[in-house]
Amino acid sequence: MKILAVNVNTTRTMTHSIAEAARAVARPGTEIIELTPSFGADSVEGNFESYMAAVGVMDAVTTYDGDFDAVIQAGFGEHGKEGLMELLDVPVIDITEAAAHMAMLIGHRFSVVTTLDRTVPGIEDRLLCFGLSAHCASVRSSGLGVLELEDADAARRAVIAQARRAVEEDRAEVIVLGCGGMAGLDEQLTADLGVPVVEGVAAAVKLAEGLSDLHLSTSKVRTFAPPRPKKLSGWPLSAH
Amino acid sequence: MKILAVNVNTTRTMTHSIAEAARAVARPGTEIIELTPSFGADSVEGNFESYMAAVGVMDAVTTYDGDFDAVIQAGFGEHGKEGLMELLDVPVIDITEAAAHMAMLIGHRFSVVTTLDRTVPGIEDRLLCFGLSAHCASVRSSGLGVLELEDADAARRAVIAQARRAVEEDRAEVIVLGCGGMAGLDEQLTADLGVPVVEGVAAAVKLAEGLSDLHLSTSKVRTFAPPRPKKLSGWPLSAH
Amino acid sequence: MKILAVNVNTTRTMTHSIAEAARAVARPGTEIIELTPSFGADSVEGNFESYMAAVGVMDAVTTYDGDFDAVIQAGFGEHGKEGLMELLDVPVIDITEAAAHMAMLIGHRFSVVTTLDRTVPGIEDRLLCFGLSAHCASVRSSGLGVLELEDADAARRAVIAQARRAVEEDRAEVIVLGCGGMAGLDEQLTADLGVPVVEGVAAAVKLAEGLSDLHLSTSKVRTFAPPRPKKLSGWPLSAH
Amino acid sequence: MKILAVNVNTTRTMTHSIAEAARAVARPGTEIIELTPSFGADSVEGNFESYMAAVGVMDAVTTYDGDFDAVIQAGFGEHGKEGLMELLDVPVIDITEAAAHMAMLIGHRFSVVTTLDRTVPGIEDRLLCFGLSAHCASVRSSGLGVLELEDADAARRAVIAQARRAVEEDRAEVIVLGCGGMAGLDEQLTADLGVPVVEGVAAAVKLAEGLSDLHLSTSKVRTFAPPRPKKLSGWPLSAH
Amino acid sequence: MKILAVNVNTTRTMTHSIAEAARAVARPGTEIIELTPSFGADSVEGNFESYMAAVGVMDAVTTYDGDFDAVIQAGFGEHGKEGLMELLDVPVIDITEAAAHMAMLIGHRFSVVTTLDRTVPGIEDRLLCFGLSAHCASVRSSGLGVLELEDADAARRAVIAQARRAVEEDRAEVIVLGCGGMAGLDEQLTADLGVPVVEGVAAAVKLAEGLSDLHLSTSKVRTFAPPRPKKLSGWPLSAH
Amino acid sequence: MKILAVNVNTTRTMTHSIAEAARAVARPGTEIIELTPSFGADSVEGNFESYMAAVGVMDAVTTYDGDFDAVIQAGFGEHGKEGLMELLDVPVIDITEAAAHMAMLIGHRFSVVTTLDRTVPGIEDRLLCFGLSAHCASVRSSGLGVLELEDADAARRAVIAQARRAVEEDRAEVIVLGCGGMAGLDEQLTADLGVPVVEGVAAAVKLAEGLSDLHLSTSKVRTFAPPRPKKLSGWPLSAH
Repeated sequence: MKILAVNVNTTRTMTHSIAEAARAVARPGTEIIELTPSFGADSVEGNFESYMAAVGVMDAVTTYDGDFDAVIQAGFGEHGKEGLMELLDVPVIDITEAAAHMAMLIGHRFSVVTTLDRTVPGIEDRLLCFGLSAHCASVRSSGLGVLELEDADAARRAVIAQARRAVEEDRAEVIVLGCGGMAGLDEQLTADLGVPVVEGVAAAVKLAEGLSDLHLSTSKVRTFAPPRPKKLSGWPLSAH
Repeated sequence: MKILAVNVNTTRTMTHSIAEAARAVARPGTEIIELTPSFGADSVEGNFESYMAAVGVMDAVTTYDGDFDAVIQAGFGEHGKEGLMELLDVPVIDITEAAAHMAMLIGHRFSVVTTLDRTVPGIEDRLLCFGLSAHCASVRSSGLGVLELEDADAARRAVIAQARRAVEEDRAEVIVLGCGGMAGLDEQLTADLGVPVVEGVAAAVKLAEGLSDLHLSTSKVRTFAPPRPKKLSGWPLSAH
Repeated sequence: MKILAVNVNTTRTMTHSIAEAARAVARPGTEIIELTPSFGADSVEGNFESYMAAVGVMDAVTTYDGDFDAVIQAGFGEHGKEGLMELLDVPVIDITEAAAHMAMLIGHRFSVVTTLDRTVPGIEDRLLCFGLSAHCASVRSSGLGVLELEDADAARRAVIAQARRAVEEDRAEVIVLGCGGMAGLDEQLTADLGVPVVEGVAAAVKLAEGLSDLHLSTSKVRTFAPPRPKKLSGWPLSAH
Repeated sequence: MKILAVNVNTTRTMTHSIAEAARAVARPGTEIIELTPSFGADSVEGNFESYMAAVGVMDAVTTYDGDFDAVIQAGFGEHGKEGLMELLDVPVIDITEAAAHMAMLIGHRFSVVTTLDRTVPGIEDRLLCFGLSAHCASVRSSGLGVLELEDADAARRAVIAQARRAVEEDRAEVIVLGCGGMAGLDEQLTADLGVPVVEGVAAAVKLAEGLSDLHLSTSKVRTFAPPRPKKLSGWPLSAH
Repeated sequence: MKILAVNVNTTRTMTHSIAEAARAVARPGTEIIELTPSFGADSVEGNFESYMAAVGVMDAVTTYDGDFDAVIQAGFGEHGKEGLMELLDVPVIDITEAAAHMAMLIGHRFSVVTTLDRTVPGIEDRLLCFGLSAHCASVRSSGLGVLELEDADAARRAVIAQARRAVEEDRAEVIVLGCGGMAGLDEQLTADLGVPVVEGVAAAVKLAEGLSDLHLSTSKVRTFAPPRPKKLSGWPLSAH
Repeated sequence: MKILAVNVNTTRTMTHSIAEAARAVARPGTEIIELTPSFGADSVEGNFESYMAAVGVMDAVTTYDGDFDAVIQAGFGEHGKEGLMELLDVPVIDITEAAAHMAMLIGHRFSVVTTLDRTVPGIEDRLLCFGLSAHCASVRSSGLGVLELEDADAARRAVIAQARRAVEEDRAEVIVLGCGGMAGLDEQLTADLGVPVVEGVAAAVKLAEGLSDLHLSTSKVRTFAPPRPKKLSGWPLSAH
């Protein structure tokens, strides 16, 4: 099957890292196609940028020329999944929900460790809307910006410190990496803390493969019915 | 004070109706400036269009040339308010929350009567994120599309039928009109059903005036801090 | 319009402070009438006194001789609003709900800073009944009694200390002053903490003005229908 | 032990019925003392009257001359228990909570069948504040006023009709009689519907006896600490 | 009446302690019959053992030869009550729910102090299923295993330390002893902390007596209807 | 990988059907091993039988002689998963949670259609404990016993009737088949109702494969730590 892995920001190197994380766990026969929006911010760290990401992703996906069997939206806590679900017939998996679903299967409570403090409420709200907040022990901020994650040592230290507090103070039993750019930290964290660590891109690949095997896709009876035909201005962005 | 009343769709006649509804309740000295996005759909009835509206509204407001003291986002159940709150120093009021706040002051439970069935879950999710769902008895659909509301008779009949069921079956004590285009139906409904009817645009004007009088505006300490400086592609839309 | 500002305790100087706080934000044309119950405690700091306040306020309002367009019940977290809503046709605003509504418009979470620790559960319960607890980060006690608030320096220090913890530990983005007697501390707190501060009396004035402009008042279809005619003993208190 | 059974309204015949219901289940050695407030309404069917009842009950109990080991407040869904808890060292049991506690022990969900429709939201709010709403399937109104319950046949028919709908439509497994005046209907209902029926006065007697046997009474560390000494006006009512 | 007090583990000395705790509060005429499962673990400290306990208890009770009027399942936070309710016509009281019900009557919030940290989530889940978590301030672990409670001094110190934190940090007003083996610590704790302490076995005796007096037992209309006749393998255990 | 598919009842033909449903969706390289408990009921339709199933499954799995990489517990709404998680190092998937996780990915709300009415509360409680009830629109009963599902025509009609009501009345967008024995009805239902249908065994296979690919298994830091060494009586059942 072909999975379209769409980044939420415009940084192509980050898209590539995401796609590599996806490829590392994809089973034979699953092809990962990487896609970067041409509209939006080079990192998404707040609501303004998250709403741009929603539109940037929808634009990139609807103007993508090839065929694909599922879409992974690779931004933690960002907007947009519901729009893609209306536009497409294939399954759409957001890495936020993917990570939470997988984490809930293997522990009583999970905590998310994310980047900047300002993104915490947005992640909490997304989990709430996905119906996945009941077993979320906490969403913790490492204090690092998305692009600062490229300094791997500092990132590791900051993320581990918060993950440790999540386990000891918030009673988390599983850690979710709350940023597409954190892919790669999971092994280190498991070694250090003795708890499973779930990375959303990898989780999303497995859920996409699973839905595909089961021939399941988005229900179209109400919330995610295709958009009605109507006059759109400025859409798609890429054509203007 | 000057209130920018931003429509979420691109239909200028609807923007004008919204602005007129705002002017009808604005106190002397409050000027209503109408603003229509140049990006998006001519009516918003689902998530794809709602996310476009979020970006269309942010684009219209940030490229608006004049000064203003508050913004009203006049789309019921649509996305975007949190983005505007980051971008602006003045208060931003969404008509969904405005209507719910006012309704909660005057009755034990309120129901929303909106347009198409497919928009119901989105409205429920927005109320949930605003923390305003505990006293919401139901969100009911009249089955009418946004632009069909222009046929006033049919609209009135369909909306009244659902409002009646909300009062009798769902135990609502106040009705909220769940679409910017329903402004004008409130008097009729109150006469017919004997319950107060809250229209979101009017409610938002009063809350904007109130916040302005109290010199209150969006807290900037965390969730709604200004966006960090970063590379944006394609932004603002109107400049491309 | 005329707003009846009713204190919940019998201390006339405090009623006057409340009324002055109301007048400071009332728009031209809004007259604030102050009213002090003749029944009850000279400060309300618990359930026994709060229930007396409910009756004292209902007695004072129903035996008040003049006309008025709205009532503000100026006790934070006290009982009684629902009774007044049954007895009156004009809007009734409780300062607890008023402050919470305004705070929710301008930040993701709010905290209340109140007086004695023993009043915290009552405030939490009132927010719960108003349907306004989902975005309440915490209710914190300054440890001061209501009448000790008159020592402005000590009050300021104690309230600021708790407000700071609310922002830093509980993630509040807006502070609500949880006592009618705290009116006046808001500017200081905003200066010190950089977050908006909402004072309930001021918030209630704006909501009362807003409802009045919209010709909205309490729904009478169920919960707040007028009391049925029946034999009352000892009522009104003032006539005995 | 001596249990003070306090009615919430001023109708002495109803107090006597309540006390007889209590005596019917009291164990040997438990004496039921009946007490009727001299302040308030002859039946309580709304918030205005419920707040009067809170004060009427506190007045009656604090001016009662004899000694007692527990108090039962015999009004379904009424205010006041928290005030009595502050004023007294002995346990205070509200029949609303008593019935819910007992019902939860013997079935998965319970429904309350009460009198007038207007009292439903108040009962729901009281269950919410008691932390007892999670297993409440519904609160249903029989449409009868408190004093109309004296027509036993009509009462029985109306209550049974609603109880049946609670079991069949709302999935209740236990019925709670939601009015002090319904004592006596329980056997009939159990015979007709095949479900256990809990009457609050009887339940409260058993809980009072149980707490007494365990030497347990109200915690005084915070919410229910004794009122602070202060100037009270018009209190107690009976002395004025 | 005769109450069957069933331990959840196979340690007969602990059964005897439980029965003695029950006898200490039983009223004259209440006979406590002690029963120890022959299947299961000698202490229950996790889900594997808790599920064994559920079956061990059902086996012991259904093969018990005498008659009885109520059953108390004396394991804190363990599984099984719902199964017994199906099998029996007499009331079944779990000490977890019994303690929570009694605690809720006498304070605004309660905390449970239990044994090992690993049992905390199970207790939280049981309270959630019983509909009794809304007023639970916290479930705290003393770090002691069930059988370590026999060292009374160490147990007392560890339990008191956590109870104190529950009162001071979590705002508990009542402490619930979260292990059948803690019976006997209540007086000490009340003396030390000034808050009421509820022990589940004692609470369950009183609720069983109360239900019996009221002729109330498990509703059989749905969830707890008797098991349908069917082929069972290996049941009852004691007969194999 | 090898997946142990454990039935919760003792009916081997049903185990085989379950295993065949698993094999139908397993990817090449996934071997499904079927396992039937020797302890318990031949169908599980209530709490007594569900608790026996928990122990029967733990017994069967811990005495199974071969190696395996994951376990699927194939009983809808039954007890036991938490015990297996303690006993094993490999992932354990319950078909109830598996179905809910998959359903939440592809629609806004899901409904479960199950067998007998009496099993509904148990399924609701399990979803609650799994943290998966927020997006559950309803759990509906077809009125059929587990073994009656073998009459395929009657089963289909009864299940379809309830699924239709779930979509039309409860606003479900996805249907979950609430019994291991319903495997096979999904295609028919999708054809009839136009909504995706999730069958738990199939969903569980995909989640087990996904966790295995990600090298994720149960967190052992707290709730699901291995049982402490202790004296067990009668365990394992199969050895007695």
